[in-house]
Amino acid sequence: MVRGGRVLLDSGDLVAADVGIQGGRIVALGVDLVDEADEVVDARGRFVLPGAVDPHVHFGNTMPFADEMALDTGSALLGGVTTIGCFLRSTVPYSPELGALVAAVRERSQVDVFFHLQVFGQEQIDDLETCAREFGIDSFKFYLSGIPGIVGSVDEATLLAGMREARRISSSAVVAVHCENAALIAAARSGEARSDDEPALVAWERRHPALAEVVAIETAAALAQTAGVRLYVVHISSADGMAHVRELQRRGVDVVGETTSIYLAEQSDSPNGLLVKQAPPIRDAANRRALWQGVRDGTVSTIGTDNTARSLSSKNPDGGLDGSKPGLPMLGAHVAAVLHTGVHEQGLPLAEVWHRLSRGPAEVFGLYPRKGSTNLGADADLVLVDLDEHRVVDPAQLGSFADFSPLQGRTLRGWPTTTIKGGMVVAADGVLTGRARGAYLRRELSREGR
Amino acid sequence: MVRGGRVLLDSGDLVAADVGIQGGRIVALGVDLVDEADEVVDARGRFVLPGAVDPHVHFGNTMPFADEMALDTGSALLGGVTTIGCFLRSTVPYSPELGALVAAVRERSQVDVFFHLQVFGQEQIDDLETCAREFGIDSFKFYLSGIPGIVGSVDEATLLAGMREARRISSSAVVAVHCENAALIAAARSGEARSDDEPALVAWERRHPALAEVVAIETAAALAQTAGVRLYVVHISSADGMAHVRELQRRGVDVVGETTSIYLAEQSDSPNGLLVKQAPPIRDAANRRALWQGVRDGTVSTIGTDNTARSLSSKNPDGGLDGSKPGLPMLGAHVAAVLHTGVHEQGLPLAEVWHRLSRGPAEVFGLYPRKGSTNLGADADLVLVDLDEHRVVDPAQLGSFADFSPLQGRTLRGWPTTTIKGGMVVAADGVLTGRARGAYLRRELSREGR
Amino acid sequence: MVRGGRVLLDSGDLVAADVGIQGGRIVALGVDLVDEADEVVDARGRFVLPGAVDPHVHFGNTMPFADEMALDTGSALLGGVTTIGCFLRSTVPYSPELGALVAAVRERSQVDVFFHLQVFGQEQIDDLETCAREFGIDSFKFYLSGIPGIVGSVDEATLLAGMREARRISSSAVVAVHCENAALIAAARSGEARSDDEPALVAWERRHPALAEVVAIETAAALAQTAGVRLYVVHISSADGMAHVRELQRRGVDVVGETTSIYLAEQSDSPNGLLVKQAPPIRDAANRRALWQGVRDGTVSTIGTDNTARSLSSKNPDGGLDGSKPGLPMLGAHVAAVLHTGVHEQGLPLAEVWHRLSRGPAEVFGLYPRKGSTNLGADADLVLVDLDEHRVVDPAQLGSFADFSPLQGRTLRGWPTTTIKGGMVVAADGVLTGRARGAYLRRELSREGR
Amino acid sequence: MVRGGRVLLDSGDLVAADVGIQGGRIVALGVDLVDEADEVVDARGRFVLPGAVDPHVHFGNTMPFADEMALDTGSALLGGVTTIGCFLRSTVPYSPELGALVAAVRERSQVDVFFHLQVFGQEQIDDLETCAREFGIDSFKFYLSGIPGIVGSVDEATLLAGMREARRISSSAVVAVHCENAALIAAARSGEARSDDEPALVAWERRHPALAEVVAIETAAALAQTAGVRLYVVHISSADGMAHVRELQRRGVDVVGETTSIYLAEQSDSPNGLLVKQAPPIRDAANRRALWQGVRDGTVSTIGTDNTARSLSSKNPDGGLDGSKPGLPMLGAHVAAVLHTGVHEQGLPLAEVWHRLSRGPAEVFGLYPRKGSTNLGADADLVLVDLDEHRVVDPAQLGSFADFSPLQGRTLRGWPTTTIKGGMVVAADGVLTGRARGAYLRRELSREGR
Ligand SMILES: [Zn+2]
Ligand SMILES: [Zn+2]
Ligand SMILES: [Zn+2]
Ligand SMILES: [Zn+2]
Ligand SMILES: [Zn+2]
Ligand SMILES: [Zn+2]
Ligand SMILES: [Zn+2]
Ligand SMILES: [Zn+2]
Repeated sequence: MVRGGRVLLDSGDLVAADVGIQGGRIVALGVDLVDEADEVVDARGRFVLPGAVDPHVHFGNTMPFADEMALDTGSALLGGVTTIGCFLRSTVPYSPELGALVAAVRERSQVDVFFHLQVFGQEQIDDLETCAREFGIDSFKFYLSGIPGIVGSVDEATLLAGMREARRISSSAVVAVHCENAALIAAARSGEARSDDEPALVAWERRHPALAEVVAIETAAALAQTAGVRLYVVHISSADGMAHVRELQRRGVDVVGETTSIYLAEQSDSPNGLLVKQAPPIRDAANRRALWQGVRDGTVSTIGTDNTARSLSSKNPDGGLDGSKPGLPMLGAHVAAVLHTGVHEQGLPLAEVWHRLSRGPAEVFGLYPRKGSTNLGADADLVLVDLDEHRVVDPAQLGSFADFSPLQGRTLRGWPTTTIKGGMVVAADGVLTGRARGAYLRRELSREGR
Repeated sequence: MVRGGRVLLDSGDLVAADVGIQGGRIVALGVDLVDEADEVVDARGRFVLPGAVDPHVHFGNTMPFADEMALDTGSALLGGVTTIGCFLRSTVPYSPELGALVAAVRERSQVDVFFHLQVFGQEQIDDLETCAREFGIDSFKFYLSGIPGIVGSVDEATLLAGMREARRISSSAVVAVHCENAALIAAARSGEARSDDEPALVAWERRHPALAEVVAIETAAALAQTAGVRLYVVHISSADGMAHVRELQRRGVDVVGETTSIYLAEQSDSPNGLLVKQAPPIRDAANRRALWQGVRDGTVSTIGTDNTARSLSSKNPDGGLDGSKPGLPMLGAHVAAVLHTGVHEQGLPLAEVWHRLSRGPAEVFGLYPRKGSTNLGADADLVLVDLDEHRVVDPAQLGSFADFSPLQGRTLRGWPTTTIKGGMVVAADGVLTGRARGAYLRRELSREGR
Repeated sequence: MVRGGRVLLDSGDLVAADVGIQGGRIVALGVDLVDEADEVVDARGRFVLPGAVDPHVHFGNTMPFADEMALDTGSALLGGVTTIGCFLRSTVPYSPELGALVAAVRERSQVDVFFHLQVFGQEQIDDLETCAREFGIDSFKFYLSGIPGIVGSVDEATLLAGMREARRISSSAVVAVHCENAALIAAARSGEARSDDEPALVAWERRHPALAEVVAIETAAALAQTAGVRLYVVHISSADGMAHVRELQRRGVDVVGETTSIYLAEQSDSPNGLLVKQAPPIRDAANRRALWQGVRDGTVSTIGTDNTARSLSSKNPDGGLDGSKPGLPMLGAHVAAVLHTGVHEQGLPLAEVWHRLSRGPAEVFGLYPRKGSTNLGADADLVLVDLDEHRVVDPAQLGSFADFSPLQGRTLRGWPTTTIKGGMVVAADGVLTGRARGAYLRRELSREGR
Repeated sequence: MVRGGRVLLDSGDLVAADVGIQGGRIVALGVDLVDEADEVVDARGRFVLPGAVDPHVHFGNTMPFADEMALDTGSALLGGVTTIGCFLRSTVPYSPELGALVAAVRERSQVDVFFHLQVFGQEQIDDLETCAREFGIDSFKFYLSGIPGIVGSVDEATLLAGMREARRISSSAVVAVHCENAALIAAARSGEARSDDEPALVAWERRHPALAEVVAIETAAALAQTAGVRLYVVHISSADGMAHVRELQRRGVDVVGETTSIYLAEQSDSPNGLLVKQAPPIRDAANRRALWQGVRDGTVSTIGTDNTARSLSSKNPDGGLDGSKPGLPMLGAHVAAVLHTGVHEQGLPLAEVWHRLSRGPAEVFGLYPRKGSTNLGADADLVLVDLDEHRVVDPAQLGSFADFSPLQGRTLRGWPTTTIKGGMVVAADGVLTGRARGAYLRRELSREGR
């Protein structure tokens, strides 16, 4: 039982209440509930929130997938994240490998996990139905522009074929697209020389112009409309991109917007320089403001991390614009970064901000009301938050194998203090308190019309 | 404690749960809550809903206000209504009388009551601030067209003056307007002769053309916009009226739409004939469909009764179009009429329908989340509903002094089976089970900008 | 032949050209047309425009209709107006008198004339069809608020009955409505006392609040929609009124907007004080700006005079707010007032401004392309305009029996220098050059759907 | 002088009038103009229209540019086309060659000509300013998808660079884009096998899916918005493409729509089979209807030919889907095809249809009111049309070197009977009546903001 906190109900209300838990599920909500519980968590002075659901995680970048998952899901728990959506990356069909990956989740993950499959070719597309049926996966991701040396891309025809197959497999399928236009980025890269005193992040921003995002969003949206599938625009990074997603939604196109915590919290004038290098790039203050506007008005349904952890030596920030690598660890600071900027800086209601961190992603990916909820019957994944705790971001305290953070040195206000998963306290006061066992989350396919 | 039902949470979800009650308030929601309660209500097979809030009741029509209130709030409880908004009617300032009326509520009402003041002149307008401050009243009603021999009306200038004063008193004030244009009705009344075989209700409908409603809605809306006050259009009765309210909302005008249970449940081809005479009139099938469309798309926020009980002899249905009286008792059949038509006939989700019966009115009149809610902390006013119970409407079972019902003889599906007020069972299986005590509900004035 | 000017073509272009005339009609447009004409008008340095069509004139206010028409249509010609729409006023059926009135036009008017019938009761409505058939009249006018002591009004039911009859008579009928709400004006009149130093026109403005216009516009529009007839809102005077007409048009309601030259040219801070008293009133600068915005964006289709001439002694400006009379002579200064403010002050293109003065009214009232046009075949009613002539408004030069002008003493830039009617020069350099003969203009009724 | 016809005035009116001509220009319009003319053309029973302006012509496909121009501008004159916009094609900078091309126009063209430059790379972009300044060219064209073996394409970055340069050169620049997405077409080409009995045109239609057009339109529009330049979408071929252009216009994006006469007149069930092969393809009946809808509602401003003449042997219709070539001669049948389908089949007013054939293109490319006009001062390029003439399309009568027509064998109703260029009759009754001399049309650049 969690006693004495202010609980975020699914109605959006924050009420003083106790939460009763049994068999890993929430079974009671009440004022001064009768206490028969084995264990009581004192939540006085805390907000009691459904665990964060991070829909956008990459593991296996610089070490084996299962090993990184085993390590960094601990960082997730410390950071208040209890469920993650992992993007798998392969260039061959996934179904032969999925059994082993599901087993790895069950054996080694500390949070619950669902999979998105990243798709690069027709052979993989032909295999999606098997993956969907056998492993309950109906979200897929395509890159309209790859990341040179890291990840490939597909052309419009392959994306269309993938979208059509996704829709055929499940009427509730979600097709995520990394929206950048390759030609515009290539041209921007080869463009005019950078002045000596220009900050590296600003130069990087110019290499990934917002227009590249816009063109790709419009392309993906036209294809998705033809295929009749829901489009999920990952990591919207620019004001223009946000405006186009908003306009598409207004026209009734089924597009869901995601942005990420690092875009919402950082700008290209960050003192951490290339530690914050990411693709698409962190942009300037006006773009950051526009992303928050997208959160505020509902254009954005989910906030993810795009967590792509690496060690400082692999990040190589001293390598300059070309030698340094994109990708950064965010699971441990995700919640704090969003609370600090969303609630304290932007003045949004906690309930609104948290919706994008938890219930929003759960709904989009078919996990609600099991996840993202404090309703009776929901999984007892809860985070206790102290909205006034000030803490300096210190990579050593974030629990990742990554020995840096893009936010390191910043004082953030608003941190998780206790994380409960399946009814058990798994992290408290910055320490993992017991080995949590993650579950693999199958999703239901839908055969009906939408 | 209410055990084993399907509870309508404020999130809109219907979940299997028990409801714990203490001190007249809801203190727990849970699956198999530990039982320390003195009293357990068995809700298996029932929906457990927040008590209906009827925003539109007239007492004192044919007997003294307090006497009618004492009698017919029992009918309300049998019908699942636990809170009512009473329209007071006088042509002199209200403040001298309000103390006595509040006392009457406390002594004699069986449900909780809040007041709306019906305003007919400047002297009353000058007194509104006193009423608001001393008695927590910030909703007022004006008639743009009266009902001959029953109630007077105001001209546009008086309505504007009243709206301005309401807004000055409280930025959250609500100005209800009976929207009919007097000249159009007078002309319709004196219009061409009625054919012998035309049903009386159809002739009555012609005497109150929809255009009269439309013109008055537009007039009231223009005045309300100028005054900066919220307009509450009572008892929308026609497709055209609904369309105009919808368009005003679309343009951002602050207009709230109300319709009534009898408009939603009956048509001018009713076999009950002049028993269903009402002003504005019950209209034909196409209008009824349009009213449900307004419920469906959110143009309508509240469903009231416009309860105006009278005895059959006072109703005088044999008096013909001119000899019979408008006004009818609806508290006892209100919930059943809306469930029957809304859920079973129209196929709307129970949660959507109930919102208009309970939380909607509570929000509009500043009573939520005390009323209209099953959240922790809400008043423990609950109704248990059997959505499949079929019952023939029988005036003798509805608990009113009125010895007829406009729906008499119809079989309705979906009835309240138990009513709980302040944590006590006050009605069960069609019988009042104990003398409930109603509270007078003061409302907070708001001095801030909107 | 008119030679050497810049001709306003129906395409909206202004081109250097000669205009050939034969039999009272335009028969040629050309550069250096071969000259066989009896008479050549030198238009070098002038714009050659279709004669102004003033849709809104009242004669017979202080002297007999035919006498005033005989006199003041000379003022019209001097002012560049060659066709007028006259509002007839009676409280009994018109058809018995129309023959005589048509004859009066033919004998005594100096401009072409069409009639609108002002309607005050059912007996007149019953007579409209006869008037329409026999005299080709399908425009009618109703007052929702009268002018105390001068003109009566109708209620909404009578207006609706009139609109329905108009629509039945002719699918192209136009129903003009004087839009003010009587109750709001009455209340404003009886409102708080006027401070001593408040200018009389400002006090007068407060007595006719814009809201009165708005409420009446919405009322008239709802009725017109029901009747399926075109609504013509005369003399829009306020920013709010304009906004409501614009919104109605946007929603597809068939509403045509008129404003008048005096509203476009004057403000309530005029040094001429009560000489500019009019109902609705001349308003402040912000309202005047909004009226021009309505011209600019097309909300306004026509600019009229609302000419209601009277002598200075009848106007009685020294009589104060209550003793002075509304109504003012405008025919002589109409064109100059609009050119001065529209072209020179507001910077609108001449073609746009002139459209509202000539082709706009001709189209609305079924006279185009006979009037309002320089197309081949149009009546040869032409005005030569010197857009740079500066002249002080002097009642003595305006040709009216009225011995004042609301604009007297103002220097206006842009005056008609020559007026041609039916191919004959009838006014030049401020002098009538020959007795022009006016025609009575019958209009076609339309029986088809719209 | 052209006497006795019905002249299309710039106002949109069709009036009985004579047209006086002097010095190659229109100098008079009149009824029974005095006749001093050397030559009188009898236009009784004919419509007299400004010569068609075809904005979209390709010369030099299978023979040298100047040779083809010399031949086929005769076909244009027979067909009623007096001005054409020629797309030049080269892969190197144009400025060195433009002098010779302009000279070729002056020496060998029979119609007036303006140039659009087709751009394929940065070197050409760098040369555009020289072309613009020296030769008055500010319209350019880019292919987002080429035509394999015929014409190349550019990527999004090059298109953006070209658009920015165009905008920099002239604020009134027009950037035309061939909108198809290469990947979607390539995929469609390699798609499932064609059944034996499927008509060749239907199979060809499947190879160029409408979605390819849609994606490219959205891409081009996003780029054009960023560059701030006007986008001209050439040859819209599909219902979906039209819908997207309409929506972009509605959102205020500066996009002009073009379609072509062959798309408006033919369908993929044509008995002429691969003679009608074109890229984008001729589509089915539903698409053709949607294109006419785009004409009707103004989404389409111009109708061109996309004339790309070739001999029957070069067309090679027996070569099957892969062996036959796209491209077809249309100048001679252009006007007849549009009149037949637009006026007689679709029931559009002649003035509306002709606007898209003449004034529309003239306005878009800065040639109005010199071209596309019958206003005084316009070039005396006129076409006399017999709207009721029925004629079977016969390649031998169309005046082209091409020995086939995509419409051959069809009976069209509505043909030009006489063509006048610069005041001289150059074609009459299907025969060229004198060697017309074409002018080269420079256009003004605009340096101002738009
Ligand atoms: Zn990505
Ligand atoms: Zn990612
Ligand atoms: Zn009422
Ligand atoms: Zn009522
Ligand atoms: Zn008036
Ligand atoms: Zn008037
Ligand atoms: Zn092309
Ligand atoms: Zn082309």
